[in-house]
Amino acid sequence: MRIVDLIDKKKHGLAHTKEEIDFIINSMMDGSAPDYQISAWLMAIYFKSMTEQETAWLTEALIKSGDVIDLGEFSKKVVDKHSTGGVGDKVTLTLIPLLAACGVPVAKLSGKGLGHTGGTIDKLESIPNFKTALSIEQIMEQVGKIGVAIASQTQKLTPADGKLYALRDVTATVDSMPLIASSVVSKKIASGADNIVLDVKYGSGAFIKTPQDAVKLSNLMVTIGKHLNKSITAVVTSMEEPLGRAIGNSVEVFEAVDFLKGKTTGDLTDLTYEFGAIALVQVGLAKDKEDAMNKLKDAVNSGRALDKFKELVKAQGGDETSLDDYSKFATPKYKVEVKSEKSGYIKKVDAYKIAYGCKLLGAGREKKTDDIDYSVGIYLNKKSGEKCDSGEVLYTIYSNDEAKTKLAKDICDEAFDFSSSEVKIDNLIYEVIR
Amino acid sequence: MRIVDLIDKKKHGLAHTKEEIDFIINSMMDGSAPDYQISAWLMAIYFKSMTEQETAWLTEALIKSGDVIDLGEFSKKVVDKHSTGGVGDKVTLTLIPLLAACGVPVAKLSGKGLGHTGGTIDKLESIPNFKTALSIEQIMEQVGKIGVAIASQTQKLTPADGKLYALRDVTATVDSMPLIASSVVSKKIASGADNIVLDVKYGSGAFIKTPQDAVKLSNLMVTIGKHLNKSITAVVTSMEEPLGRAIGNSVEVFEAVDFLKGKTTGDLTDLTYEFGAIALVQVGLAKDKEDAMNKLKDAVNSGRALDKFKELVKAQGGDETSLDDYSKFATPKYKVEVKSEKSGYIKKVDAYKIAYGCKLLGAGREKKTDDIDYSVGIYLNKKSGEKCDSGEVLYTIYSNDEAKTKLAKDICDEAFDFSSSEVKIDNLIYEVIR
Repeated sequence: MRIVDLIDKKKHGLAHTKEEIDFIINSMMDGSAPDYQISAWLMAIYFKSMTEQETAWLTEALIKSGDVIDLGEFSKKVVDKHSTGGVGDKVTLTLIPLLAACGVPVAKLSGKGLGHTGGTIDKLESIPNFKTALSIEQIMEQVGKIGVAIASQTQKLTPADGKLYALRDVTATVDSMPLIASSVVSKKIASGADNIVLDVKYGSGAFIKTPQDAVKLSNLMVTIGKHLNKSITAVVTSMEEPLGRAIGNSVEVFEAVDFLKGKTTGDLTDLTYEFGAIALVQVGLAKDKEDAMNKLKDAVNSGRALDKFKELVKAQGGDETSLDDYSKFATPKYKVEVKSEKSGYIKKVDAYKIAYGCKLLGAGREKKTDDIDYSVGIYLNKKSGEKCDSGEVLYTIYSNDEAKTKLAKDICDEAFDFSSSEVKIDNLIYEVIR
Repeated sequence: MRIVDLIDKKKHGLAHTKEEIDFIINSMMDGSAPDYQISAWLMAIYFKSMTEQETAWLTEALIKSGDVIDLGEFSKKVVDKHSTGGVGDKVTLTLIPLLAACGVPVAKLSGKGLGHTGGTIDKLESIPNFKTALSIEQIMEQVGKIGVAIASQTQKLTPADGKLYALRDVTATVDSMPLIASSVVSKKIASGADNIVLDVKYGSGAFIKTPQDAVKLSNLMVTIGKHLNKSITAVVTSMEEPLGRAIGNSVEVFEAVDFLKGKTTGDLTDLTYEFGAIALVQVGLAKDKEDAMNKLKDAVNSGRALDKFKELVKAQGGDETSLDDYSKFATPKYKVEVKSEKSGYIKKVDAYKIAYGCKLLGAGREKKTDDIDYSVGIYLNKKSGEKCDSGEVLYTIYSNDEAKTKLAKDICDEAFDFSSSEVKIDNLIYEVIR
């Protein structure tokens, strides 16, 4: 078998065999296939795509390239939830303690994110003294004791995906359905859970722009799951507007804690319950959606969900009293309340522009080695559908630098669209695919 | 400007600017664009192609990447002839002395060929003591004195093309019209001639399979010539069957010399005269094709063409008496005359299979460092259209190894198709494009 012949085969739109895909991935990993052959192959895949079966084989090959976490007795029961990434998306923070409070064991591994804000791990590390460096043994022990653990991924999961992704990133081959699907699913399966809930986002703040493409990707990922005997549910959700009101790191933790305290309403609240219900039904802890909703709301209203989060924070070395006193977090130098110059109903808050504003403030990183400023961020005092009079606070900037504040304000000002008449809010969930 | 954005642009089918193409080629040459980006770009070009203008800019960028030979006073008058490569194609050997005898200065640079047989330089080096390592100064001096020189290319012409071609070869991106066209034309223009005659071959023995594709490529190359102020004529010719009767290295020299002696008829003879006429008209040494044909035939019939070849051989250190006594060449151990088992008219002699037989005998090389056996080869005693009775010699194998002889015979036997009725021969020239 020669790599050049396999590139030629894909270039002509023919499907690879399992042996061919294994050969390509193995050759990439042992260095016998140079990067320039792999990138040509990736570009051919961009143009000619892959069948579902090929994509499943590619996913398997990526999984086999590294460690696969064995969750032992928990693997059948634990739920892993993953989002393809969105602005203000802190559903992992709200959902993990909620599910754990309902009796679903959660063992979550997360990578450090690249993007406009930090990833879940970064957000959690903004909690005073919270540690995420746990070994698999520590995770298992903690899940056995309190039912929940969340750790930064230190294992060598799917190194072939890491290598492929790095190449895709610099060769304009990121936006290929089979390549995205195999990348996402391989990482989740290697993380050990049998039940996977995927939040597939589309819109201004997501890398997939249309609901149609998000559905296509979701169908592909659910099908790969079937090929590989994993239960995958994909929920296609809108990311035209930031999720919730807080975008940043510690500000997102505050909003997640507020949810657990039962203090929030709106998209973040609704979506967390929807995902929770899907998970409870998927693992058999609720007989239907209504039953699941009751159990989830009871966990919040009774305070058990908040207590579970405090237990988690304490177990991982964090100061759980900070969740009742946000002043114990690092605080930003400036809090700028930006007042509206217009009156009317908010029609749209552009997710991409708000995210870009956060990036300018220093909330995210471009390289894995960049530092993140946990304390900075944006708070949306007004969201779509809400009325806003001239002079009311439209949004708030948390910042540590005056010049950056100005730059962020310039772009965030542009994010708001007004309407003179009332605005109806679209459904957040576009489709659930099982 | 970032390479990844330019790959993305091409991936979406958009045309590059001159600056973008220069940036890509310069970045490739200075190493700032790694091979994996260039190969992804090449694959995007395979799928989305390039405009004529882009291809002309790419050609210019390839020319600028290395030395450009200055033929000084000769540049306006010399003709450079190039073939995209075919089996038994020794038209350069017949044409160079013929044109020189008609008063056209010829300064030909040729690379060592990779393929089933050697290239023009290899064939010439099969002449006892013939030397092809000449400096540009030596070439110019010799052209001034006897009107003709042929040398192996030692200058760093179009190194960017060399790098691109090496990448294309291992990433299945060879078969792209703009990439082929820019590669061929850039090398010819860098070689210094203003008048270029290209033999664009299609068929079983060529890398372009259909006349339609050959016409497309020819049009593109002629257009690039216009963009770059060079006079290019492209002649689309069939390569379904080997050209002439000899395939190998020294056997091809013998056939070329036989042509100069006026002893040959058929496709090689006809094509040499056709190309000669095109060249004489192109440089203004004949007023039309008929005038040109008369001059060319007179050069052969008078013995001037043969004398010119002997002058060339002598000037470059070779033994010119060998052209009247082929036994002075290295002679092969075995001469096997293969007799026909069938009777009828030859319908087709498959060029690819005969070429493969020659390769098995050792007539070609796969790597630049491989040795070539000059003395081995195939002679077609019968060609298409000719009658062959059972027991008549069909073809002859010249070999130095019994086992290789058997392997070559097995494949060459399969190359001949017979017909019970007379066979009409197609025109060798499909189209002339100026």
